[in-house]
Amino acid sequence: MDYKFSDRISSLKPSAIREILKATSAGDVIPFAAGNPAPEAFPVDDVRKITAEILEKDPITALQYGISEGYTPLRSTISKYMKEKYNVGSEDDDIIITSGAQQVIDLATKVLVNEDDVVISESPSFIGALNTYRSYKGRLVGVDVDSDGMNMEMLEEVLKKEKRAKLIYTIPNFQNPSGVTMSREKRQRLYELAKEYGVIILEDNPYGELRCSGENVPCIKSIDTEGIVIYSGSFSKILSPGIRVAFTIANKELIAKMTVGKQASDVHTPVLTQMIVNEWMNNYDMEGHILKIRDIYRKKLELMCGLIDSELGDFVTYVKPEGGLFIWCKLPDSVNMLKFCSVAAENKVAVVPGIAFMMYPEDKTQCVRLNFSTPTDDGIVRGMKILGKVKEMF
Amino acid sequence: MDYKFSDRISSLKPSAIREILKATSAGDVIPFAAGNPAPEAFPVDDVRKITAEILEKDPITALQYGISEGYTPLRSTISKYMKEKYNVGSEDDDIIITSGAQQVIDLATKVLVNEDDVVISESPSFIGALNTYRSYKGRLVGVDVDSDGMNMEMLEEVLKKEKRAKLIYTIPNFQNPSGVTMSREKRQRLYELAKEYGVIILEDNPYGELRCSGENVPCIKSIDTEGIVIYSGSFSKILSPGIRVAFTIANKELIAKMTVGKQASDVHTPVLTQMIVNEWMNNYDMEGHILKIRDIYRKKLELMCGLIDSELGDFVTYVKPEGGLFIWCKLPDSVNMLKFCSVAAENKVAVVPGIAFMMYPEDKTQCVRLNFSTPTDDGIVRGMKILGKVKEMF
Repeated sequence: MDYKFSDRISSLKPSAIREILKATSAGDVIPFAAGNPAPEAFPVDDVRKITAEILEKDPITALQYGISEGYTPLRSTISKYMKEKYNVGSEDDDIIITSGAQQVIDLATKVLVNEDDVVISESPSFIGALNTYRSYKGRLVGVDVDSDGMNMEMLEEVLKKEKRAKLIYTIPNFQNPSGVTMSREKRQRLYELAKEYGVIILEDNPYGELRCSGENVPCIKSIDTEGIVIYSGSFSKILSPGIRVAFTIANKELIAKMTVGKQASDVHTPVLTQMIVNEWMNNYDMEGHILKIRDIYRKKLELMCGLIDSELGDFVTYVKPEGGLFIWCKLPDSVNMLKFCSVAAENKVAVVPGIAFMMYPEDKTQCVRLNFSTPTDDGIVRGMKILGKVKEMF
Repeated sequence: MDYKFSDRISSLKPSAIREILKATSAGDVIPFAAGNPAPEAFPVDDVRKITAEILEKDPITALQYGISEGYTPLRSTISKYMKEKYNVGSEDDDIIITSGAQQVIDLATKVLVNEDDVVISESPSFIGALNTYRSYKGRLVGVDVDSDGMNMEMLEEVLKKEKRAKLIYTIPNFQNPSGVTMSREKRQRLYELAKEYGVIILEDNPYGELRCSGENVPCIKSIDTEGIVIYSGSFSKILSPGIRVAFTIANKELIAKMTVGKQASDVHTPVLTQMIVNEWMNNYDMEGHILKIRDIYRKKLELMCGLIDSELGDFVTYVKPEGGLFIWCKLPDSVNMLKFCSVAAENKVAVVPGIAFMMYPEDKTQCVRLNFSTPTDDGIVRGMKILGKVKEMF
């Protein structure tokens, strides 16, 4: 059979980058390319106790069909938490539980973006999001990221020019991959520009709870009086990514359409995993656990930054992140960035070439992304020393 | 904000039917409109033991990110099971685990159907599938269902005419809503026609294990030498719908594209729930449990059919299903079908008006769908007696 695939899926080609990543997936490679939480960051005992209790007390609810909007008690719990802690959500808003935050991106695109409509994104940005926009044949337009977030002059120019702009995608906290946090002033300005041009903002905040230093900056959604911000939050980085529980808070009209979209995608997110999250939030020490994983990641971040300075100090530049999972290192202009990644891989250290995060293959970047949450402390030390030697070859 | 939604989501309008269903969702209504497994059909003790064991022995695997293709041991277990029991799967095929069988439909459409391409479906068919096709702006073309399955003359005419046909959607066993099982001859003919016209078959088999009487008919996928059948199977009806674990077996090229599609949808299906299914299949009495739920549903089916005959025998006609969850009853031509459903709802019995399962709102049907798995035996008796009285008003 000579398969004729859809245009949308044909636009998602496996890339040269994936081949580099594949070559570095062997067991003896130090994983600076990953984005997994540290194994010690999972509240294993809590999950054990909670799950046993749910299956003892209320097994049929956990195993029967649920509703597409999500497990009602969890929706209430998260709504209350987000309102009290971050002032996110209003009377005009509603919430649905999704199968990971990837599904928020998928549903937002499904309900808002026609083929050839424009999605504006920080450039570089999360490859998973970019691929979802591509899968709907949205046209990506990138906006540069400064050390305090998206460049607002460039954003305004893009908004002036692109009449079919439907969505502005941003990761305001510890952005993936740049590690940058958007300033309060820029969040305000972004909101005003979106309002002026009638474009919806998708505020993707998977790392928000992973702040290691500095002051919390209010969510864009917290100043949303017009219903133009879709907020996306996730339990992947604080509880478990494997259970795939995330949520979105947005205006009721948007949520109603996203619910119809979810019905056609996977009907509903598993009930058992939603019940686990609800029980954890209500009756276990979630806040204590968040403080614990902040400590874990703060130590790993400091360890890696110290080693970047000592091993690569004269070679790379970077903005030290205040949280999250990633450090974005710029190599000298004279260095072939892809070659650097290949040689690192040959020496058993996996880093992601920055081009993976750009809108288009022809975009230019001298950066590589390093992750500090997945490798062990020993792995960080060994890996950075290897990169220090790889540097000598350039 | 005046939201501008995408064309694809705007084509999914809430219908008058949903309003009828909403009116019948109150607690005191007898649920002949549902499609939920009976609560007594869940292997609760097994799930309790298995889950405790997984979280004791291998919690990090259960909580960490998984791969988009699915939990590798489960993929092997299902492949072996499907090959041995149903001769489904070949060396050219591969398997991915999905978030419910709804996601198989979503991914197949995503990778094969461009906007305005044609999806051929049994008419009537599963509303969830039809809505997914609509959500990709596929054009639905219905083929009548005879008492032995899809009408093959009509299918051939459609294939001759529709040059943009990309997918033939069928539920060959105990079809939803008609309850009909496609004969072996028609399966062979369907396969030959699909091959001749170069169109992929999506064989959706969620009810296959729920046979109450008659002989097993081979899966279409079991005769697929050309790689033109996408097979979809599910654990929703034999283990639990709430855990959302299903799978698809198809040619490697198709599976590779569907995996890329899944990456952009929800990254992967939760690992914990996949591990539960794997453990259940390997070390618990799944076959014994399937026999048990067949007994449960056989009794309920016989009870409801007996009552249809005694209470509505001179009023409705139906093909007695050999399994599944639904009975499709045709009302006399003189009766206003929607009115019948409304009056039933007023009398606290929920049935689904057949129009919900048709391709287009202007299609004609005199049928209503009754479900026998969700109501209690007492509910079936009371509900059918009420319908017997409702009948007198027409």
